[in-house]
Amino acid sequence: MSALTKKRLLSITLLAGLFILIFAAVALAGDPSGANTGGVGDITAATAGQPTMDEIAAQVGKNKIGINFVWTLITGFMVFFMQAGFALVETGFTRAKHAAHTMAMNLMVFLVGAIGYYIVGFALQFGGVGALSAIGGTAPLNQEFAINGWGILGHAGFFLTSNGAYDVGVFTLFLFQMVFMDTAVTIPTGAMAERVKFSTVVITSFFIAMFLYPIFGNWVWGGGWLAQLGSKLGLGHGVVDFAGSGVVHSIGGSVALAGAIILGPRLGKYGKDGKVNAFPGHDIPMGILGTIILFFGWFGFNPGSTLAGTDLRISVVAVNTMLAGAVGGFVSMMIMWLKFKKPDPSMMCNGALAGLVAITAPSGFVNVNSSVFIGAVAGVLVVISVLFVDSKLKIDDPVGAISVHFVNGLWGVLATGIFADGTYGDGLNGVAGGVTGLLYGDSGQFVAQLIDMGVILVWGVGLSFIFFKILKATLGIRVKPEDELAGLDIPEMGVLAYPETTLRSSSLDRSF
Amino acid sequence: MSALTKKRLLSITLLAGLFILIFAAVALAGDPSGANTGGVGDITAATAGQPTMDEIAAQVGKNKIGINFVWTLITGFMVFFMQAGFALVETGFTRAKHAAHTMAMNLMVFLVGAIGYYIVGFALQFGGVGALSAIGGTAPLNQEFAINGWGILGHAGFFLTSNGAYDVGVFTLFLFQMVFMDTAVTIPTGAMAERVKFSTVVITSFFIAMFLYPIFGNWVWGGGWLAQLGSKLGLGHGVVDFAGSGVVHSIGGSVALAGAIILGPRLGKYGKDGKVNAFPGHDIPMGILGTIILFFGWFGFNPGSTLAGTDLRISVVAVNTMLAGAVGGFVSMMIMWLKFKKPDPSMMCNGALAGLVAITAPSGFVNVNSSVFIGAVAGVLVVISVLFVDSKLKIDDPVGAISVHFVNGLWGVLATGIFADGTYGDGLNGVAGGVTGLLYGDSGQFVAQLIDMGVILVWGVGLSFIFFKILKATLGIRVKPEDELAGLDIPEMGVLAYPETTLRSSSLDRSF
Amino acid sequence: MSALTKKRLLSITLLAGLFILIFAAVALAGDPSGANTGGVGDITAATAGQPTMDEIAAQVGKNKIGINFVWTLITGFMVFFMQAGFALVETGFTRAKHAAHTMAMNLMVFLVGAIGYYIVGFALQFGGVGALSAIGGTAPLNQEFAINGWGILGHAGFFLTSNGAYDVGVFTLFLFQMVFMDTAVTIPTGAMAERVKFSTVVITSFFIAMFLYPIFGNWVWGGGWLAQLGSKLGLGHGVVDFAGSGVVHSIGGSVALAGAIILGPRLGKYGKDGKVNAFPGHDIPMGILGTIILFFGWFGFNPGSTLAGTDLRISVVAVNTMLAGAVGGFVSMMIMWLKFKKPDPSMMCNGALAGLVAITAPSGFVNVNSSVFIGAVAGVLVVISVLFVDSKLKIDDPVGAISVHFVNGLWGVLATGIFADGTYGDGLNGVAGGVTGLLYGDSGQFVAQLIDMGVILVWGVGLSFIFFKILKATLGIRVKPEDELAGLDIPEMGVLAYPETTLRSSSLDRSF
Repeated sequence: MSALTKKRLLSITLLAGLFILIFAAVALAGDPSGANTGGVGDITAATAGQPTMDEIAAQVGKNKIGINFVWTLITGFMVFFMQAGFALVETGFTRAKHAAHTMAMNLMVFLVGAIGYYIVGFALQFGGVGALSAIGGTAPLNQEFAINGWGILGHAGFFLTSNGAYDVGVFTLFLFQMVFMDTAVTIPTGAMAERVKFSTVVITSFFIAMFLYPIFGNWVWGGGWLAQLGSKLGLGHGVVDFAGSGVVHSIGGSVALAGAIILGPRLGKYGKDGKVNAFPGHDIPMGILGTIILFFGWFGFNPGSTLAGTDLRISVVAVNTMLAGAVGGFVSMMIMWLKFKKPDPSMMCNGALAGLVAITAPSGFVNVNSSVFIGAVAGVLVVISVLFVDSKLKIDDPVGAISVHFVNGLWGVLATGIFADGTYGDGLNGVAGGVTGLLYGDSGQFVAQLIDMGVILVWGVGLSFIFFKILKATLGIRVKPEDELAGLDIPEMGVLAYPETTLRSSSLDRSF
Repeated sequence: MSALTKKRLLSITLLAGLFILIFAAVALAGDPSGANTGGVGDITAATAGQPTMDEIAAQVGKNKIGINFVWTLITGFMVFFMQAGFALVETGFTRAKHAAHTMAMNLMVFLVGAIGYYIVGFALQFGGVGALSAIGGTAPLNQEFAINGWGILGHAGFFLTSNGAYDVGVFTLFLFQMVFMDTAVTIPTGAMAERVKFSTVVITSFFIAMFLYPIFGNWVWGGGWLAQLGSKLGLGHGVVDFAGSGVVHSIGGSVALAGAIILGPRLGKYGKDGKVNAFPGHDIPMGILGTIILFFGWFGFNPGSTLAGTDLRISVVAVNTMLAGAVGGFVSMMIMWLKFKKPDPSMMCNGALAGLVAITAPSGFVNVNSSVFIGAVAGVLVVISVLFVDSKLKIDDPVGAISVHFVNGLWGVLATGIFADGTYGDGLNGVAGGVTGLLYGDSGQFVAQLIDMGVILVWGVGLSFIFFKILKATLGIRVKPEDELAGLDIPEMGVLAYPETTLRSSSLDRSF
Repeated sequence: MSALTKKRLLSITLLAGLFILIFAAVALAGDPSGANTGGVGDITAATAGQPTMDEIAAQVGKNKIGINFVWTLITGFMVFFMQAGFALVETGFTRAKHAAHTMAMNLMVFLVGAIGYYIVGFALQFGGVGALSAIGGTAPLNQEFAINGWGILGHAGFFLTSNGAYDVGVFTLFLFQMVFMDTAVTIPTGAMAERVKFSTVVITSFFIAMFLYPIFGNWVWGGGWLAQLGSKLGLGHGVVDFAGSGVVHSIGGSVALAGAIILGPRLGKYGKDGKVNAFPGHDIPMGILGTIILFFGWFGFNPGSTLAGTDLRISVVAVNTMLAGAVGGFVSMMIMWLKFKKPDPSMMCNGALAGLVAITAPSGFVNVNSSVFIGAVAGVLVVISVLFVDSKLKIDDPVGAISVHFVNGLWGVLATGIFADGTYGDGLNGVAGGVTGLLYGDSGQFVAQLIDMGVILVWGVGLSFIFFKILKATLGIRVKPEDELAGLDIPEMGVLAYPETTLRSSSLDRSF
């Protein structure tokens, strides 16, 4: 680690400490105990039958918010657990000599992401959101910076403290949104694995968590200008993205794409004769386990995005998610089997994940047969994209993160504009009626989704390119070639992943 | 893969695509948004105290259904996660040279199972079920094919579309039941591991998901003839099986039994001199991790089977499950320790799983001390059965799936008829009063459970035998001997599980 | 296994069987079906708008209890899953030659713990607790043995049967508390790994589950004398410990400390010249996976401790937990990076876990900025403590359990007395107003927490020392040196963890 990096890291640490001291005295506002959220009743078995109607009504409101808190928190916990899935997929499908580095990156991004989102990210993304009826009506955040009425970014809730953010409803929203942001932060590590500096990923994660992700998130989910395209310009409900094919996966995938390109391929990946070398993953069961964990977590990711267990659409969302993922994996498997004669396990995983990414945006708005179709297309897309990125574009993406998250995230955004069947979304973004796609008659919604895709390309890919270009020119982003060849574990992390296991010498040579 | 298999697989893919086109226009019926399920109220904190009694009542109904959805979906997600547990147990307790094959089978069965159950399985199993008050009263499925009033199979809800199946309550039921079915599908892979063709498992999984499992499931849980034995013939409540010792585990175990027999033992398992060779699992920590994951998932499996969080019996079910599993594992461990001088880790796992399988059917109906007893018996049974199957019957079951699931599933069905204490089950299958076993005075219930066991033998084992016999005679079900010896990973999957790890040469020789 | 041990184990088994027979006839009392808990209403969609006010009130009460059951059970299941996390952390961060032993210990402690807690532990801990409004008001346990009004231990609910314990509310409490106890039982295995006899851990686990833990637990959570310090002596709310920094982690850590000292260091750990040798963990990805699983489980551990989803403080608890863990891991990583030039993965894990342990007691009572500060201090403390214990005290703690759980558990107890901000805890332990720490003006609370720390030292460390001294003098607690050098897997468990993997010979020599 250079002296410069060291200083920078020290500064960050000290700065964080400073902020903590500043906020030692917390402004008490909002409803920190929850006693006044959703009603103040306390009906128990003993009193059943005797309470007054006012007491009953208060308990009913409390129960409703309680159900929604339980749902949002538990599904949020499941999304957190996806961190384990990403870690295993990325580590299992890369090589043993970098395994401690790859795995540790996936833990670290959460540590960094949580801190960055707490300090500033959440406030930028959701500072403009007023009361949320599903998880409590007292949320006092309502500070959106806008130009001509078009929302640009929020500015309330820094350190979960300012503007009375110490409120049970705000905290519920923070927990759920933090783990979503964290998913975006962990996507690039797969594409940049086996050659990126650990310190680069620390800085990149702060950047995504504090600025890149929250500002785009504000535009779609925080009441910002993309969400306003419907109410202001009549483009359907404005941009809709039920659980983040665009906001989370395409944005995370954008960083992955820019990072993989600017880092360049791993040594030995592309021979001088143009030959494309495959570097097989060192632990296929680990990668499959990670995929199953991700699938499990996705049942939190998509259905949880109602923020309400009393919104019974959750079951449709869950089934749509299940079938799109299953069909995606099945289709990818069959393509590989028919084309290359073997049902490639890693492509089964990528196909399932592609189906899940693609259904994420439409999962709330489409019917189950559309979900099956969306998943099937994702299963085809991911195979084509992986081969195209690897062999034609010659962008080295060790685990297929670009194809899974970026490409299929965009497909999910588009599919929403095509297949939304009008049964759900009444009132979303201030527009009456269900969200309706092209096939069901609303071309305005389709246009809104196309605009979303364009903005993702400009903001996500464009800004990431600039960020990595600057970082490369200043601190550097890639490890030394000799470290890459020997494996990043000792030079970057100080420990071997498997110090007692005898690895085949070929595993060290294979990178040539 | 033979040309025939290839064609068949292609056909299946095309067929699936065709169906999707057919159903592009989805019949809108049921309640897809959930707005009208459980009440239409929307009481929030702001309005607490002022709503009318009608509004209150509507929100109370909505809250109730919301609680039940949250419970059923989250426990269903936990059951899905058991897929990871099965994958790890089966892979960890078998050999490294087949690890990618074993692990990938366990992912694939879910992909296939979900599709098969969506197309036809669910409709056959639950097409005859009308309104389910716990998860919404508008479920419009009500088409049961019956002979003389005895239900045989349902026929509504194909593709989750026909007969107004696009309904939040129906989708909740689908999600929960699909992951249950999936458990049955994944059990045989353990017994058939290390020698079965991947394509055989694809076909078998479609068969189980679409026909074998749902039809039997209809008889017990879908209002079919086994459930009617109580109301029609006075045999207790008819066959009862709280969470599926019989429906899921014995049926899945039946396929495992038939598959293991017809496949025959692994090469080298039984010497010419009658010697029984042990093939130790290649990764014991992996197998133990899988067991803990399965135990975790079982807390969804059993308690979730109320389909209702407002059914407070869930806590009794959870504790019964916990203690039967713990006692099962403890007893198996002690037997091995006393008999063979070592507390064998894999038998600890099998004992815990046996206790969990055995308590699955009775978990809702028995008290905690009976649960401890049922678990203890399971812990004994599984040790005896593993040794008997392996050494006496000489059926080669690499992970003990027959002993864990088939044998203890039957024990669970029987135990329900013995120990049910009459405190729960009022109105189940249309019979008043709690479910009561032999010990508490109802011999009719005991007879019903005996009938269930008989039907499992005939339908489960019998049909599986016929199925595998046909498959063996046509497409073939076993890999080539040279592939088995070298390991299935390259010939069947195209990749090695651990390409960089140096395996002891003995691991390759050990199969002789 | 010696003949004596064998006899003892046999006796335990027989004894357990005997008790089961005794309780074959279960006293029916409490509310086993839950039909009368929380209200008897059954409002469905069909009847919404028409029920009477009494029916509505009953359903509202039922809904409330249903929400709280769902919350408490699911978070309890998540805590159970932490067993997998502990197993992976302890096994990954120790050596391959003991991996089956280390992993199997972590499964076994659950089996044993559940049985011991069911037989006697729960009754001692919670036998004195009357009605619990959050999870049902009919809980009939109310038998506390007290001296001069100071509670010492409960004596109701043995075998979950006596005194009408067959009640849905009691069973919910049992499930949640059993998995908490189990966490304490699994902590010592890490500190004693690689040299302790498997039978020693069986006996120790029974001891912790049946006596050591429950009695202390009674004093803090079961209405015992430490909880009474507030109402009787005016020391704040008496000892408060929201989710068990003290009750679970410091007590479990106490056993770890005593066990590690009395066992002595692993062979070769400390050279004759005073040199401290490091034994690197054999599978870093496994350890990191375990850490992520533990972090996931902690979202059940802390927020679940409200026992109520209608207590909306759960979101504050969840966010406090998230940020303290994240900051703890980040700070530890930065310290290692700055001091030793590498962001040590295992210290990242220990830092995150230290933050989680430290926030466990205060998580319900402090604001988010205090949580960040508490986590940061934990991240510093754990690094200092690991180095100090290893190099200065020369206590050999293979995975840092003493530093993570004992030291940071005490810090969490103390931090509660400093940072509690008075917004939560009204009525806790019979004292009105929110729990308030030193910084917010209540020095009495601070004193109560200091007393708690002293009692942990005396009861936890002291009693554990005596226990291990006796065990060492009678049955012996340490394996033979030749077994330790060869690895415990074959001599203790009868199987190798990885029979096919070629381990570096250095891994066997390294212990010298």
